[in-house]
Amino acid sequence: MTKNPKNPEKAQALPITALVATYWKAVDAHDWDLFDATLADDVVYDLPQTRERIRGKQAYSRFNRDYPGSWQIRVLRTVVEPHQAVTWIHTTRGLTELHAQTFFTTDAETGLITEITEFWPEPYEPPTGREHLVERY
Amino acid sequence: MTKNPKNPEKAQALPITALVATYWKAVDAHDWDLFDATLADDVVYDLPQTRERIRGKQAYSRFNRDYPGSWQIRVLRTVVEPHQAVTWIHTTRGLTELHAQTFFTTDAETGLITEITEFWPEPYEPPTGREHLVERY
Repeated sequence: MTKNPKNPEKAQALPITALVATYWKAVDAHDWDLFDATLADDVVYDLPQTRERIRGKQAYSRFNRDYPGSWQIRVLRTVVEPHQAVTWIHTTRGLTELHAQTFFTTDAETGLITEITEFWPEPYEPPTGREHLVERY
Repeated sequence: MTKNPKNPEKAQALPITALVATYWKAVDAHDWDLFDATLADDVVYDLPQTRERIRGKQAYSRFNRDYPGSWQIRVLRTVVEPHQAVTWIHTTRGLTELHAQTFFTTDAETGLITEITEFWPEPYEPPTGREHLVERY
């Protein structure tokens, strides 16, 4: 991180593409100090599927530090605007593979993550009646 | 749509934000002619959860035209770059409510949608043991 020339005491905000890459690198490596460094103190993490919400860096970091098991993360796609981003990741945890979509909002001044909304869609069997239009892979 | 001054016979590509809004407006209204107008002829639609893939505008339009029932769409969030976008939508179909995340890729020249990858995560009960960190809503 380079110094902000307007305020040499203050680290310059990481561009959002790098911030999101750092976030996933930290999760993949279980590097929770690096993980914490990407988060605003008042970050809110939201899981619409379970209707769960976690408030604050301390609780959200704890949630991740305590999460059972080990896993690997591969970022398949990232879409960014200056203060929001979405990633599509693929995770492997033992024999379980899952995709997740994560929406990030960042603070315009600090560049840190203030909101995360995440979805964990699971595989399902397709309904019948559309086989003539689709291929399976 | 305004004419492209370099080629008056060719309609100018719709900016991606408007294109994605038009796509969802068409799906919400079951306006399949408008829907078709957003798609490249060789569009590919991908559902990683079922590992289904549909190739071509004709088949993908048919898939949507034949989809049983009626529904309403609300776009909750859009993130765009010049040639890719993501939306988070909320759908209501009878008593069923679902969220979906949709990744779009567009053709740089025509502005039409060439790839769609979509996820339909379903609600689930959260694992126990993290109640002290989360609130439910």
